[in-house]
Amino acid sequence: MQGTSGPSVKVGIVGASGYTGAELLRLLSIHPNATVTYLTSRQFRGKQVKEIFPHLIRSPFEELSFDEFNPERAVELCDVVFCCLPHRASFPAVKALMEASSKVKVIDFSADFRFNSFETYESVYGVEHGARELFKEAVYGLPELFREQIKRSRLVANPGCYPTSAILALYPAVEAGAVDTDHPVVVDSKSGVSGAGRKESVTFTFCEVNEDFRAYSVDGHRHGPEIAEKLGLKSVRFTPHLVPMNRGILTTAYFKTELSKEELQHLYENRYKGEFFVRVRTSPPRTHDVAGTNFCDIYVTKDKESGLAVVVSAIDNLGKGASSQAVQNMNLMFGLPEEAGLKLFSLWI
Amino acid sequence: MQGTSGPSVKVGIVGASGYTGAELLRLLSIHPNATVTYLTSRQFRGKQVKEIFPHLIRSPFEELSFDEFNPERAVELCDVVFCCLPHRASFPAVKALMEASSKVKVIDFSADFRFNSFETYESVYGVEHGARELFKEAVYGLPELFREQIKRSRLVANPGCYPTSAILALYPAVEAGAVDTDHPVVVDSKSGVSGAGRKESVTFTFCEVNEDFRAYSVDGHRHGPEIAEKLGLKSVRFTPHLVPMNRGILTTAYFKTELSKEELQHLYENRYKGEFFVRVRTSPPRTHDVAGTNFCDIYVTKDKESGLAVVVSAIDNLGKGASSQAVQNMNLMFGLPEEAGLKLFSLWI
Amino acid sequence: MQGTSGPSVKVGIVGASGYTGAELLRLLSIHPNATVTYLTSRQFRGKQVKEIFPHLIRSPFEELSFDEFNPERAVELCDVVFCCLPHRASFPAVKALMEASSKVKVIDFSADFRFNSFETYESVYGVEHGARELFKEAVYGLPELFREQIKRSRLVANPGCYPTSAILALYPAVEAGAVDTDHPVVVDSKSGVSGAGRKESVTFTFCEVNEDFRAYSVDGHRHGPEIAEKLGLKSVRFTPHLVPMNRGILTTAYFKTELSKEELQHLYENRYKGEFFVRVRTSPPRTHDVAGTNFCDIYVTKDKESGLAVVVSAIDNLGKGASSQAVQNMNLMFGLPEEAGLKLFSLWI
Amino acid sequence: MQGTSGPSVKVGIVGASGYTGAELLRLLSIHPNATVTYLTSRQFRGKQVKEIFPHLIRSPFEELSFDEFNPERAVELCDVVFCCLPHRASFPAVKALMEASSKVKVIDFSADFRFNSFETYESVYGVEHGARELFKEAVYGLPELFREQIKRSRLVANPGCYPTSAILALYPAVEAGAVDTDHPVVVDSKSGVSGAGRKESVTFTFCEVNEDFRAYSVDGHRHGPEIAEKLGLKSVRFTPHLVPMNRGILTTAYFKTELSKEELQHLYENRYKGEFFVRVRTSPPRTHDVAGTNFCDIYVTKDKESGLAVVVSAIDNLGKGASSQAVQNMNLMFGLPEEAGLKLFSLWI
Repeated sequence: MQGTSGPSVKVGIVGASGYTGAELLRLLSIHPNATVTYLTSRQFRGKQVKEIFPHLIRSPFEELSFDEFNPERAVELCDVVFCCLPHRASFPAVKALMEASSKVKVIDFSADFRFNSFETYESVYGVEHGARELFKEAVYGLPELFREQIKRSRLVANPGCYPTSAILALYPAVEAGAVDTDHPVVVDSKSGVSGAGRKESVTFTFCEVNEDFRAYSVDGHRHGPEIAEKLGLKSVRFTPHLVPMNRGILTTAYFKTELSKEELQHLYENRYKGEFFVRVRTSPPRTHDVAGTNFCDIYVTKDKESGLAVVVSAIDNLGKGASSQAVQNMNLMFGLPEEAGLKLFSLWI
Repeated sequence: MQGTSGPSVKVGIVGASGYTGAELLRLLSIHPNATVTYLTSRQFRGKQVKEIFPHLIRSPFEELSFDEFNPERAVELCDVVFCCLPHRASFPAVKALMEASSKVKVIDFSADFRFNSFETYESVYGVEHGARELFKEAVYGLPELFREQIKRSRLVANPGCYPTSAILALYPAVEAGAVDTDHPVVVDSKSGVSGAGRKESVTFTFCEVNEDFRAYSVDGHRHGPEIAEKLGLKSVRFTPHLVPMNRGILTTAYFKTELSKEELQHLYENRYKGEFFVRVRTSPPRTHDVAGTNFCDIYVTKDKESGLAVVVSAIDNLGKGASSQAVQNMNLMFGLPEEAGLKLFSLWI
Repeated sequence: MQGTSGPSVKVGIVGASGYTGAELLRLLSIHPNATVTYLTSRQFRGKQVKEIFPHLIRSPFEELSFDEFNPERAVELCDVVFCCLPHRASFPAVKALMEASSKVKVIDFSADFRFNSFETYESVYGVEHGARELFKEAVYGLPELFREQIKRSRLVANPGCYPTSAILALYPAVEAGAVDTDHPVVVDSKSGVSGAGRKESVTFTFCEVNEDFRAYSVDGHRHGPEIAEKLGLKSVRFTPHLVPMNRGILTTAYFKTELSKEELQHLYENRYKGEFFVRVRTSPPRTHDVAGTNFCDIYVTKDKESGLAVVVSAIDNLGKGASSQAVQNMNLMFGLPEEAGLKLFSLWI
Repeated sequence: MQGTSGPSVKVGIVGASGYTGAELLRLLSIHPNATVTYLTSRQFRGKQVKEIFPHLIRSPFEELSFDEFNPERAVELCDVVFCCLPHRASFPAVKALMEASSKVKVIDFSADFRFNSFETYESVYGVEHGARELFKEAVYGLPELFREQIKRSRLVANPGCYPTSAILALYPAVEAGAVDTDHPVVVDSKSGVSGAGRKESVTFTFCEVNEDFRAYSVDGHRHGPEIAEKLGLKSVRFTPHLVPMNRGILTTAYFKTELSKEELQHLYENRYKGEFFVRVRTSPPRTHDVAGTNFCDIYVTKDKESGLAVVVSAIDNLGKGASSQAVQNMNLMFGLPEEAGLKLFSLWI
């Protein structure tokens, strides 16, 4: 099946009872080289997986209990820890883990280590960073851009869901110098609701989201600077929208270019040739093509009258936008086949 | 209630069994100055309204039957005919109606009379127009732009749903000369599924649309030229998307401008002051705010770093994007209060 | 239009910021004989309607502010108060209102006055009732069963949404003695999510409900005894389910009977002849036929092999199951045409 | 991973472009002991998998083409053929396959071989059966009831989706003689839309299903007799409903019994002990717990007042209700581990 069965990586998940944690558990339940050994959840402390997630009854870890986070215990039980805490809550946990052991590896789902410098983080997130010294070790976990660094890293900052969809959509053109930066780059993204996480809220109750479509953070969203920094652009105009569906991000990106449709198509195919998880398509992708998977599907075309390139990319925000990308990073960090446990296809409908 | 009760306009609907027809029936059932007297449907010919639309049992016209279209009978029974046929099928019907009587008024839902000239129509739609002579009479039925012409017109071309949302979002800035046309104007629109009409189809079956978000017509959509023409722009980049919901269009529009957020907000408020159906908002609108209504809600802001104005507009594609806008046009054409029968608020949830 | 314009009833809503309150505001905005004069909301105290409900900008009461509940002020400003508080929270408010004035009328949305006796209430809801003396005044607000009592009442207990759908589905057969009570009566109901109210919650967030269908309260739900009491049955087996949609209840009810399909159909048509808001149908109703309306649509048939009658009824849980039924009750209590403001048809799609 | 890698079964799918075919492809793409060698589709004949199902780009069979059905070619290329045709269309194909080779095994998704006798089939489906002689070979493919017969069979009739959910919900009680058959057995089932298949249709377009809940076939559905026959009951009252979601069936079943809740729970746990794919739960299951999987989750309780047992069961109609159950049958027929390729857990959200 998926990867050869071999020595198993011992995996812990901190903050395991949210959507990204549950998605990790689903993926790890069929990973040939991983064993889940440690789970934390403040809210469900002492409960077993099968009590909180009855859909995981019969899984290998159905009787594992959620603990309160304890860094010493974590590093004793784990080769790698996925840290699924919100930004600001994450850096102390990451720091504690890395101080508790010089061997444990950490894949952080928050924004806390995604920027190149703590200064940018502090300016964008408006808080002081309490683990500034770790920035020099952190690698941005987008394998299609930073594969070699990820392989050697102990601390991977798993990218944001929107940035994953936007960066993969724009990088080939940026890298090739094909973006005319005298004109703004527009990233218009649309996300399913699971991107908002699992929390008590009126805003995201069914009735408020169903049969509705909205833009939000129209006056500024923190993923804008993350996208711009990784692309080396001065700025991008980024607008997120909320789609009444559970999973998926579709990004429509616009930039001025001299290249023709054919040249763009060629450029993208070339750049992603050999990338198993990026599928450059000949027709616009749909989010249901990638739901539940680690794929990023991309279509690129040219609007002749305006001179704009139009790129459409689709990912699963919990997949390539979070948990399966984290597993891809784990595979790289442990020398496993990059696709191990990830050759899964969408439910489609 | 809604408008004063007075002499009643006799209304016919050609192609009454689709979504726009059903929405007209819903609206006309509570209109104080309209009586439905004539309905056609090829598919349901001979059937009564209550058989085909059981949700309209108890309505004033529940026992009215669907006829096959007959222009003589139509003009005999009606003061105004709403023509809800697809483009290309519409112009022969419109022509027949207008030839059968010099008094009947026609509100056409198709694209057949929306352009300023038949040449543009023929180029965009790729067919020869069989009623070229009617172009000089036709008025584009967007009351916020063409109110006085509509009042005097016998033939109103009801705007497309996407163009309504885009034009209202951009017009104040265009009119004021605030759009820097050295940069492309981007219109990124997202529509509910009823925009596709009521027809046999695999593409729009529930399972193919639900839990999916997609872009379509990425290489060109006919509403692009309609938007550009009405705004007097050389071109706009227009990308439509399909949202898994029944009703609603949200448009996010981008253009380069010198104006600040405050100036833009002021400009829009001023332009639409006195327009009952345009609500310039201080927070981004959501489609559920306008579903089932004739409102267009608008929010405008400025992205300082890119220099782009960002405008978000929300309409109901079957409301302001089709049937209720048609009723607004009817009200104007017959000297009724413009809001008659239309002071309805969204179900919201 | 809907009812003749005449003297206006002054209306207050206590707990106006939830879903039933918002639905009342939508309905009252087009009611020819009602003026909203008083609104309370603890959460949004001091805010105007247009700030909290931007979909109601341009409504007659857009600038009315939400107050903290004050019974003296309420009775001063109102002829009738709709009390939209949860059970247990409602009876003190109702009591305070009725003590503050001997003239004000109250329509209570909670369960607090629905049972025939406080003893049943206390047993089913497990709390002591602090306004036991009001039971003798309270009338169960199902006009099709208790019209005359409602007309004379000062305190109407608006029925539960499930009970409305179940009682209307079963009453004609029960009343005619056609139910074989040696066999259980089964009420299998399915509700949209708005029935759960507007509150912070993980259980009802979009992702937890969407693409899911569940039964709940399978071991007992408080609407079971309410249904049984009003039908005069010893018990009914009631199972509620949650449907991933905003509005609507569909109830499928089963009872053993000697009657044939034709006899059942005849019985139901006869019983509801003259009831504007009950439509006995010749094909099974769907919730979209009644969404946003005060209709209850019913279909009855017979399963020959099992000897069971099968009744399917559809209502909007926020309409006939709550707010529009409350308006129907108000109309009766104030001598207005029963249909005033309620001749609205479903958006359908 | 899932089952040991070993000699691979060569698999064909007839009618591979519908929903059950696509689900088989998804499942077989990760099955350790199966290779897809043959696909047919009249509609997409000559096209490759990756053209029709872009979500399967990168799968092992992405370049396999859809053929027109040819029984000789099928048996040459396949050890087993999944026949995903509608009833009536299926029996000729099954017959042709079994005549073309005495070794090929067939798993039929239609109703054509589900009944014990062709007489019942002909009476329920109202057509003459053209392959009556195959009935003696056909086994009903519900492993939890007919495991040993399936292992020895060449022709398995894969059960209907509703019957799977109903039979598993009722069988333990029936088998134990705990159902009081003097009272009707009621099966009230609710299904996602994919159960209707992939076809051109107005009835199942998004707008007609979304925000709607309906009962259908209220006067009789063919799955009723299938359920009754397999349970050995004279009749069951079966009512299907349509839920606005893609996947999942929830069945609520009612029968009169002397047993207590505890006895029922014990009976069910005992009966399904050792069944990997049936999870007897201590709280009511939800369809999202089983979506995309082969699990059937069951909860049983007792309504004391009415004396009814209430059983709630949840399956994925395309999973345990169709394609994954077919794979389970294949595993049994070829001596593979029964869970091979099927230890997958729900996406959950």
